[in-house]
Amino acid sequence: MKLAIFGLGRMGANMARRLSRGGITVVAHNRSRGPIDELLREEEHIVPAYEEADVFRELDGPRVIWLMLPAGEITSQAIERLLPQMSPGDVLVDGGNSRYSETMAHAERVEAAGVHFLDCGTSGGVWGLKNGYSLMVGGTKAGFAHIEPAIRMLAPTPDSGWGHVGPAGSGHFTKMIHNGIEYGMMQAMAEGLAVLRKKSEFDLDLAQVTELWREGSVVQSWLLDLTADALKQEGQGLEAIQPHVADSGEGRWTAIAAIDLGVAAPVMTLALQMRFASQDDEGYGNRVLAMMRNAFGGHVVQRRDES
Amino acid sequence: MKLAIFGLGRMGANMARRLSRGGITVVAHNRSRGPIDELLREEEHIVPAYEEADVFRELDGPRVIWLMLPAGEITSQAIERLLPQMSPGDVLVDGGNSRYSETMAHAERVEAAGVHFLDCGTSGGVWGLKNGYSLMVGGTKAGFAHIEPAIRMLAPTPDSGWGHVGPAGSGHFTKMIHNGIEYGMMQAMAEGLAVLRKKSEFDLDLAQVTELWREGSVVQSWLLDLTADALKQEGQGLEAIQPHVADSGEGRWTAIAAIDLGVAAPVMTLALQMRFASQDDEGYGNRVLAMMRNAFGGHVVQRRDES
Amino acid sequence: MKLAIFGLGRMGANMARRLSRGGITVVAHNRSRGPIDELLREEEHIVPAYEEADVFRELDGPRVIWLMLPAGEITSQAIERLLPQMSPGDVLVDGGNSRYSETMAHAERVEAAGVHFLDCGTSGGVWGLKNGYSLMVGGTKAGFAHIEPAIRMLAPTPDSGWGHVGPAGSGHFTKMIHNGIEYGMMQAMAEGLAVLRKKSEFDLDLAQVTELWREGSVVQSWLLDLTADALKQEGQGLEAIQPHVADSGEGRWTAIAAIDLGVAAPVMTLALQMRFASQDDEGYGNRVLAMMRNAFGGHVVQRRDES
Amino acid sequence: MKLAIFGLGRMGANMARRLSRGGITVVAHNRSRGPIDELLREEEHIVPAYEEADVFRELDGPRVIWLMLPAGEITSQAIERLLPQMSPGDVLVDGGNSRYSETMAHAERVEAAGVHFLDCGTSGGVWGLKNGYSLMVGGTKAGFAHIEPAIRMLAPTPDSGWGHVGPAGSGHFTKMIHNGIEYGMMQAMAEGLAVLRKKSEFDLDLAQVTELWREGSVVQSWLLDLTADALKQEGQGLEAIQPHVADSGEGRWTAIAAIDLGVAAPVMTLALQMRFASQDDEGYGNRVLAMMRNAFGGHVVQRRDES
Repeated sequence: MKLAIFGLGRMGANMARRLSRGGITVVAHNRSRGPIDELLREEEHIVPAYEEADVFRELDGPRVIWLMLPAGEITSQAIERLLPQMSPGDVLVDGGNSRYSETMAHAERVEAAGVHFLDCGTSGGVWGLKNGYSLMVGGTKAGFAHIEPAIRMLAPTPDSGWGHVGPAGSGHFTKMIHNGIEYGMMQAMAEGLAVLRKKSEFDLDLAQVTELWREGSVVQSWLLDLTADALKQEGQGLEAIQPHVADSGEGRWTAIAAIDLGVAAPVMTLALQMRFASQDDEGYGNRVLAMMRNAFGGHVVQRRDES
Repeated sequence: MKLAIFGLGRMGANMARRLSRGGITVVAHNRSRGPIDELLREEEHIVPAYEEADVFRELDGPRVIWLMLPAGEITSQAIERLLPQMSPGDVLVDGGNSRYSETMAHAERVEAAGVHFLDCGTSGGVWGLKNGYSLMVGGTKAGFAHIEPAIRMLAPTPDSGWGHVGPAGSGHFTKMIHNGIEYGMMQAMAEGLAVLRKKSEFDLDLAQVTELWREGSVVQSWLLDLTADALKQEGQGLEAIQPHVADSGEGRWTAIAAIDLGVAAPVMTLALQMRFASQDDEGYGNRVLAMMRNAFGGHVVQRRDES
Repeated sequence: MKLAIFGLGRMGANMARRLSRGGITVVAHNRSRGPIDELLREEEHIVPAYEEADVFRELDGPRVIWLMLPAGEITSQAIERLLPQMSPGDVLVDGGNSRYSETMAHAERVEAAGVHFLDCGTSGGVWGLKNGYSLMVGGTKAGFAHIEPAIRMLAPTPDSGWGHVGPAGSGHFTKMIHNGIEYGMMQAMAEGLAVLRKKSEFDLDLAQVTELWREGSVVQSWLLDLTADALKQEGQGLEAIQPHVADSGEGRWTAIAAIDLGVAAPVMTLALQMRFASQDDEGYGNRVLAMMRNAFGGHVVQRRDES
Repeated sequence: MKLAIFGLGRMGANMARRLSRGGITVVAHNRSRGPIDELLREEEHIVPAYEEADVFRELDGPRVIWLMLPAGEITSQAIERLLPQMSPGDVLVDGGNSRYSETMAHAERVEAAGVHFLDCGTSGGVWGLKNGYSLMVGGTKAGFAHIEPAIRMLAPTPDSGWGHVGPAGSGHFTKMIHNGIEYGMMQAMAEGLAVLRKKSEFDLDLAQVTELWREGSVVQSWLLDLTADALKQEGQGLEAIQPHVADSGEGRWTAIAAIDLGVAAPVMTLALQMRFASQDDEGYGNRVLAMMRNAFGGHVVQRRDES
């Protein structure tokens, strides 16, 4: 099998490696040359495509083009640009983190041109190269058939960790919700560790505690594995790490999707909001509260020049 | 009528003033002399009691002793100390912010000695002197009858803003829940203002917005009145105020009482927790989250030395 | 002054009444005749406009047309239909509950035609007729000048309860956040009452408790006034009322706007989500939880046929 | 090695089996005979102790008595009853789910008599027999040395899944927080599945989705494994399962401990509160909200007789 990957960032490059190591030829394209050359040096079944035109030259029909680009404008523009160059029966895969509603619009446009469109939500982070990725694919059966061999190769095993879950958009939707769940699980774990740490009279070793939970306990999970390892490596005080937690589109879209559907998703949403709070250096809401307490109760407010 | 107030802090002193101005004689006792002398200078119907013994000398039976002391040990010890000096038919009022479960234990002990015990939850803050207090009283009917004239005088009007709500403990319980509601209302308002402020393209004047909501809107409330006034006075940026929000026993006890009763009180509880978050300078949980994101996704963590 | 109101639902009809009673002539238009005739019978300064064309006949330039229509498609279509019939210098007001982002698009279109566009967020519910409305207006100064007399008449007093808060969209944005705050305040109050009720040993009378909080307490508010009155009228058990709480666009949009801005608004959002939970008759998430508990702990699940 | 287990419920009996199968002799005691006889029939190294006195007869000093009893009164009474019969140097283990604060009081009492006291938080549910238990032990080093062989046998492997985490109470505290994290993780997963289900246009197969997440994804976890299996077994609709989710002491105590420590634990707490909401058949808070909406906005309330 032969397919092209567009976008050789952390995810795209590693997926190219995993495919190549499994014997699938990857036509590798990227805006800049560096990542292409690196792949070429390190992996066997890589065909470089420094220009977009090279991709079309290297692929035979039906061509499979797999986008691993930043969601939003960049992905949309790539689809606009590529579609006129593709032929009926070709296959376009969006393996990035696009918002499912945009994906549905993309699918409509692409399928109208007779090109198969598939959205592939991809989980696994930097560990996917070694362990395989969890892959959630949306699109038609006919389109999926074209990429199934690649999906089986990217997955942890040919028969697990992947699924063709539904029509176009459903892959990204499922991946989005996966991330929402991840937010909640992470927040739960972080809160638990924060309470353990605050109970200073027990002088707990959180690297030990997380390590022992890894086997036999109800909270055993991959996130826990990573947490235990990192606490050992960083030192449990984490003094060097700033308490600012970034968030991503998928966390926000999950919360919004739940609202649009009228489903209560309080824990997933709150996990997102606690990240917002961690990013908030102004603390305006808290200033308002301190001010109110002063106004009704005469409670002292700390003023900047006092503290 | 004549009664003794123990504890001339902000609340106790103002209550003594309001009673005195209404013609009720207040035997005023405090650990230190200052607040007694101040009351004596400024109000008419004040009898100073520099020592506890003076209180018993100045009051005729049935004596009414009204505690306005910090909740917890100080209030408990005062009850222990006073009870042996009181006579059956006397009246002991706890007007402070005691936890209702402790109040129930106090009541049992005091009533067993033949002394009436009443718990009086008191809301109104620094505005109570002028506007009157909202008073929630727990205890027996017989006991309540002794203090009803004082209650009517402390309240905004003789016929409103007070109630004998139930048996011993119910006054403090009702006041506690009142504060839980207050936490939730404050947090809702603070969040709303924070969102308005973040929408910088509209360049809203939050002093104007809160002022206009004061009449006709669904959110009109005393908290809004205070907020609007304070935003005008402080300047809407609140730059001088630190974003640290203290919490009090009643907020915590409300959350715990809801858990003990198995009732969902998520908004009241979350309002408390957001205060905890505002007080958290270590941010351990957030460090854990930043570390996890790095561990699974290779996401950059900000380190102390970089920022 | 003379202006036209389009849409004589509960809000539009009452606003027409209040304007008419203040001496402003209202050209009243509605899809169906009934509400026009009712206004005509009951109020003095009403000019009926059974057809849209009548509105243009009755108004002299600059014409002020005030839409009080359901948000979304109906409002958008009305603007599309009316705009070509309006002349430069005329004034179009959207007094409904449109989403502020749609309002900004409407404003751009309308202003491009030389017609003033104003968005007027309106709070006050069924009480506005008597007490006046709280009005938050967005748009240009020049546009606002045309409607200021009407705004002063609709407001509780000519000098309070209204504001020209910023550019187009800011009126609806401010009203939207107002509703978000309202959601939080309501939820806080409902939770507090639920905890009080569950504390059955105190046998509290919640009509009494809410009534006494109305004066002197920190939670005094219009929502509390309504709650106290309703508890008296309905009976505190509220047995006849279903525990299903509807939500509206503004509650949802507030939560989404906070996410879009990256501001934590957990209490406002959670209040919305608790409404979703109240509407959820399937309880799928809870079934999943019950199933999980069974799977790891052997905990009994209640099955349909058992209960 | 030889030790006694008191209490042969689901957890105690399975622990006895696992120890016996590893070659440790278990003196098995239970209030009723049935579970003792069952163990005796099925396992090799079991010594029956139908009366408490039998336990003391069968054990040589230093005796190890391991309580697997319901937390609270029953555990406290057992300790009271057993302590006078034990000798200095003997070892008492509380392997149940006692509240850590009670455990600390027990430890003080027991250690004062010269008897070692250890608290052993135990996770693993019905799967522990096969997979081993995750064990968090609090107490002195000297005491721990006596039970280490049994701990290594109960754990998934002799060198993993267990830890002596700190002084008396710290084992139960750590286990309690473990359960709090579990609540949060479960709720996150349940919410995610509820959103996926509500997105009916994608017609997702949740058994498939959870199955594919089990390998390679960030949310892979034991809870997910169980969920995927259960969805396959039950059918993804879960129609037969009631949406009522029970809660346990540890979930409540975690939330209260966080409040006592002043640490924000919003997700763990909210997960608990959503369980309370699932248990709430009266819906009083929601009735209040529906009533309020009617009071200020004239919104229709559904009444019992209408629906």
